[in-house]
This record gives sequence, C-alpha cells and structure tokens, in this order.
Amino acid sequence: MKKSVVLLFFALLTVSGIAQQALWGIPTIISPEINADNTVTFRFKAPKAVKVQVSGDFLAPQTIDTPMGKFDAPGVADLTEGKDGLWEYTTPEPLKPELYSYSFIVDDLKVMDPCNVYSIRDVGTVTNIFIVGGGRADLYKVNDVPHGTVSRVWYDSPALGMKRRLSVYTPAGYETSGKKYPVFYLLHGMGGDEEAWLALGRASQILDNLIAQGKAEPMIVVMTNGNASQEAAPGETHFGLVPPTTALPKTMEGSFEMAFPDVVKFIDKTYRTRANKAGRAIAGLSMGGFHSLHISKQFPDMFDHVGLFSAAISREDSKAEIYSDIEGKLARQFAKKPALYYIAIGNTDFLMNDNVKFRELLDKKGYKYEYFETGEGHIWKNWRIYLTEFVPKLFKK
Amino acid sequence: MKKSVVLLFFALLTVSGIAQQALWGIPTIISPEINADNTVTFRFKAPKAVKVQVSGDFLAPQTIDTPMGKFDAPGVADLTEGKDGLWEYTTPEPLKPELYSYSFIVDDLKVMDPCNVYSIRDVGTVTNIFIVGGGRADLYKVNDVPHGTVSRVWYDSPALGMKRRLSVYTPAGYETSGKKYPVFYLLHGMGGDEEAWLALGRASQILDNLIAQGKAEPMIVVMTNGNASQEAAPGETHFGLVPPTTALPKTMEGSFEMAFPDVVKFIDKTYRTRANKAGRAIAGLSMGGFHSLHISKQFPDMFDHVGLFSAAISREDSKAEIYSDIEGKLARQFAKKPALYYIAIGNTDFLMNDNVKFRELLDKKGYKYEYFETGEGHIWKNWRIYLTEFVPKLFKK
Repeated sequence: MKKSVVLLFFALLTVSGIAQQALWGIPTIISPEINADNTVTFRFKAPKAVKVQVSGDFLAPQTIDTPMGKFDAPGVADLTEGKDGLWEYTTPEPLKPELYSYSFIVDDLKVMDPCNVYSIRDVGTVTNIFIVGGGRADLYKVNDVPHGTVSRVWYDSPALGMKRRLSVYTPAGYETSGKKYPVFYLLHGMGGDEEAWLALGRASQILDNLIAQGKAEPMIVVMTNGNASQEAAPGETHFGLVPPTTALPKTMEGSFEMAFPDVVKFIDKTYRTRANKAGRAIAGLSMGGFHSLHISKQFPDMFDHVGLFSAAISREDSKAEIYSDIEGKLARQFAKKPALYYIAIGNTDFLMNDNVKFRELLDKKGYKYEYFETGEGHIWKNWRIYLTEFVPKLFKK
Repeated sequence: MKKSVVLLFFALLTVSGIAQQALWGIPTIISPEINADNTVTFRFKAPKAVKVQVSGDFLAPQTIDTPMGKFDAPGVADLTEGKDGLWEYTTPEPLKPELYSYSFIVDDLKVMDPCNVYSIRDVGTVTNIFIVGGGRADLYKVNDVPHGTVSRVWYDSPALGMKRRLSVYTPAGYETSGKKYPVFYLLHGMGGDEEAWLALGRASQILDNLIAQGKAEPMIVVMTNGNASQEAAPGETHFGLVPPTTALPKTMEGSFEMAFPDVVKFIDKTYRTRANKAGRAIAGLSMGGFHSLHISKQFPDMFDHVGLFSAAISREDSKAEIYSDIEGKLARQFAKKPALYYIAIGNTDFLMNDNVKFRELLDKKGYKYEYFETGEGHIWKNWRIYLTEFVPKLFKK
C-alpha cells in the first residue's frame, strides 16, 4: 500500500500549487518559532532579496503622520541574511502572552509568511497570526477542554427586507442537554462582520475556556453582521468574491439597531434560550459598542447586561429616530435597573474623550455602571481582554 | 456624527497593519478583474521588482521532473510593468467557468495578492482564489437562494479515544421544518481535514444551489476528519497553531474506518436524520474514496449510496482487519444491492490504473456501479464536478 499512498500524496502537493517540502521530510523552515523563553524567531527564505523586514503588533508602534493627524502603525524590524538566503530575526526580549499579527516586508513588498498557514482577515487586510501562551492568552488558545459548536446561520429580517447571516456559538453539551441557555449578543466594529469576533476576537476559544474553568455560565453567543446593507460577510453573499471595502455604507444610520428584534426573535425561536431580559446580554466593540448602547436603550426590556467596548459614542445628532432623545431613553433604561452596564476602553483610545463625557452623563444622573480601563488604544488586544472580563459577569442570577 | 465615524474608521485601518487606501476613496487596484468577456486581468503593485509572474491552475500546466517521476505543476505567466510600478497580465483567452487558484511570484518569491482577501488553504499551501461564473461554476457561487447552516461540531469517538471535530451542513429550513433528513457523509483526501470540502470543495454552495434548483433532496452533509490521529484541522486542536504537516501519520491503517460508526451514532443522536441504510450515503475523494470503499463494505447495512471520487484504491495488503478479505466483503455488500455505487475519475489521474483494475473486478463479479470519467487528473476541479454529479442521484426513493 505504501507506494500508492506516497504517490497520491505527492500528486496532491503538486496540484496545490507550491511543493511543500516540509511534507517530504526535508528539514523545514519553522516560522514563527516561539522559543522556550518566549522570544520569537521569524524566518524567511529569500536569496534574491535586498531587505527583509517583519512588521507586527509585537513591535513598538511607529507614529505616522497623516492629513488627519498622527496615528500608530505597527513597528518594523530588520531580518538578517544567513546561509542560503535564509533571513532571520529574533525578538530581543520575550514577548508577553498575547495573540499577535504580523507580515513580512520584502524589498518594500508585503508578503505573507509561507511557513505559517494561519492568517486572519481584518476588514480588508490579511495578516499572519501566532499566540504566545500564558496568562490571559491561554484563554485565546484551543485547549483540551469541551468545545462548543460554531455555526453560520441565515435568518430572516423582515425589518431589513433580507435574509442575513450570523454566527452562533452554542456551548459544549448544548446538543444533548435539553437545557435552556442565556444568550449573549456580541457585535463587531466598523468594517467588520459576523466573522470578526470569531477570527481576531477568539470568541469561541474564550467561551470554551471560561466555561470549562467554571468562570462563565454556559451561554449561547450570537455574532451578528452590523452593516445593515449587507446580507453577510464579504464573499458569503451573492455579490461574489468582491473586496470587503464595498460594503461600508449604511452602517450607522439606525436601521441595524431598529431591526435587532428580528435577530432576537429568530434566536429565541431556533435555539433553546432563556427568552427574557435576565437571560440576554449585548455588547460590542467600537461601532458595535455604539450599536449596543442604542439598541439597549431603545428596547429597555430586552437586555439585562450591556457592554460598551471602546464604544464609538457620538455626541452629534442624527435624524434617525433611534438616536433621538438619548437622555430620555437612558432614563427609561436605567429606571428598569439593568443587572450590568459595563464600559471599557484603553487609555490612549481616540474615542476616550467621548467615553469620558458619556460617563459624566451617567454619573450626573446617578446611573450605575462598571468601568474598566486598560492601557493602549483601539485594538483587538483590548477587545479580547474586555470579552474575558465581561463574560464571567453575565447571567449570575 | 460624521467626524467620529471617519476617525473611528481610520483607526481601525492603522491598527490592522497596512493602510487600506482602497477604503479612503483613493483609486484602488482591482485584482483579479474578471472582464466582461471572461478574460481575467491580474494586477500587482511592485515598483522595485525585476520580474512579476502569476502562477495558477488557469494556466496550462508545466511538467516538472522529480526523482519520483514527472508531475504537472501550475503554469506561470509574466506580468508587464506599467506606470508607477503597476504590473499587469490579462489572459489571452476567456477563462472557462471554474473556481481557480493562483499566487504571484515576485522575483522568485511566492506572494499572495494583496488586493484579494479570498484565499484557501489546501494541506499546507495557501493560495488566492477567484470564480469565473457560468455553467457548472454557478453552482460554486453563493447565489441568492436559501442557505443551509454550516456548523463545526465536536463529537465523542470512544473507538479512537478522543473528542473529534467535524463539519455539518444542514439544509435551509432544517431549524424549523421538524422533518427528518437523509445524511451524506463526505470525506476528504490525504492531508486534508474537516474543512477541505467546505473550502476548495464548495460543498455548502453546491448543496444550497442544487437543493434550491430542485435537483437534489434536502440533506444533511457531514464532513469528517479522516486522519485518525487528529482531533481536528490544524489550528483547531490543543496542539496550537502548528504547521499542517505534523498531522499526517496514521491516516490509512484502518482505525478511521473502524471508528466510523461513532460518527454515524453521534449524527443520528444529534440531528433529525433518516437513521437507516436508505437514508445514508458516503463518498470521498482520493484517500476519502479509499475510506468510503472500505467503510461501506465493512458495514454493508449502513450506506445505500457509495461514491469513489479519484479513489486511492490499493491492491496491496495491509495487516489491518478492515482491508482483509476484500472480495468476500464486496460480495456481502453487493448481495445487499446498494442503491448506488458510483466511481468517478479523471482520465489522466495517476490512480487510473488502480481504478481500472477495481472496475474489472466489479465487472467480473457482475456488481452494478455507475462510472463517470472526466478529463484531467487528481484535482479539486474534478472533485467539485463529481460532487455536483453525485448529489442529485442520492435519496431518490
């Protein structure tokens, strides 16, 4: 049998485009390699290259000047050329536990790491990823614990006049337990979609791990698509494999928020849910925080737990009905005493000022909320942290 | 509100690693562009490059010599440098309807298309993809039809002593219909995993479309992981984000086949299934065809429909019990008159000879089967075709 197996295998490789020597026992290039001391080595084979660099969020950011002001961009480090055109870079210090993303830059050209098949799309950008374990980052890993089911499901939204796609996490044991579960609605930021929290947010791993550790209640997590003009993530609609950029209009004019009861209705009909306010939470990052704020006050009997992660809180008015009379609606919401109103943001977030003003409003009115501040800014690292902090607080009664 | 939205958006871009000018109204590079006449234009910005090429399965293959013989590798075409370092190549002829994969080669370095976020991992290789629509390829597209649910689910395999991951497609309407559905078990090839048929196989799109057209019965499709030593696809296990290559041992020594009843038992317990022989089909590509052959004859009361797609049919013996007494087991299987035994292969497949010999055996014994031969060899293009041909034949009674 051996011969045909080997032949078969080789054929698979050649048709797949690039011969994978790694599969043939020839010593393979390992990149990235997480060393025993948590320094990380990057390797890239490029005999003809003049300059090979790695760019990633594990490096100190570089400030770039733009017409709109100064912004942080990922840092860059040079690899050194060794034998046979193999370039290498090892971080001078151990990296802290975290999920990191990176790309190579070869003679000014962005190149994915050919030795690392793990990549994540964030809006219109694809980068490779790796995880340095330990501490909180162990929550981002797939561990040897019971795993929930992750489904991509289509639901009908009469309010938006279309079928739409969402991602649903059901906890381990859901299929056979016969129990009813609380539901956490988890919303992405601008440019994202129903895949974002699963990809960069590591939502299913975080839930698996927190539930296995007994730190979170088993719950259903529903990740919607917050772009009201989109049926689904790019590539998942009948518009074809179009660039993600075409889907940006109509994200923040109120229609997504007003149509949110369609989602809740579908979930309560399709899954075994605790279909009441005490059994529902909503939270989101950035634009999703904005959505969570407005949805939860528009429908004050729907969610007992609300989370605003680096929320895009706007002070300006829009014509949409949902954004009118914010103070009156907040008064109605807080009169009903939500079990948890949670605000988290990084101390360098460009949205900090709006969040400070919003908290001042809540303070002035005497509305109770929890506040959690981290370092750094408007980044996935913070949103993963907020998720791990928020989830254990839910559905405790 | 406008100001904060724009700011927010820009921040998301900078943290995501590479500024996406496309999102800022600056004219974007479109690549690949499928032109009105189905020629396709590839574009790549590389002002410093000496040579830019595109390699893909839309180009005539090039034969490469290896110590193991001659094999086909994807062809290569040169891009031409234009203004501002923008390189371009347009196919001289329209491309036939198909899902194609490709990469750029910049000064001998494989580079993903930065303008195309759609890529697929095949074993250890990642390539960009695009679809030229029309004809059968329209079945590979997401169309404006009802969509089934795609879930990644963990099941318990006592026979293999581990929890394992599989992908499940339930047809549109499953959640609310209350009906029972037949189940099609669909197996990948060597090096693949429970993601393979969804990614390069376009299984969920093909099922959505065939069911919507009334050409296939609504059915559940279960895509297993055929590597008996693996819990799940690379990156989805507690071994971390390791290269896919480490998971190859123990794929074809009988344990996966012998443990298959664990899968069927789990599916029948978890989903509303037609839990009998008439309600079950099994098929697979390459190693998955080998698995389908051996599972279906080992458990002759389990599957009424069997499909061998470019199957790795081995003539040599293995010590594993499941591979013993092939003729006797086939006799028992065919005595029970399977509703469909289907064999498909490409006329240049390196496994053709083994398939010819297997068919000669079936012919000699007078066992009924359907045979379908296409052009070309051991490639995903053929496996998608076989899937579209096989599925409409299932569960007709």
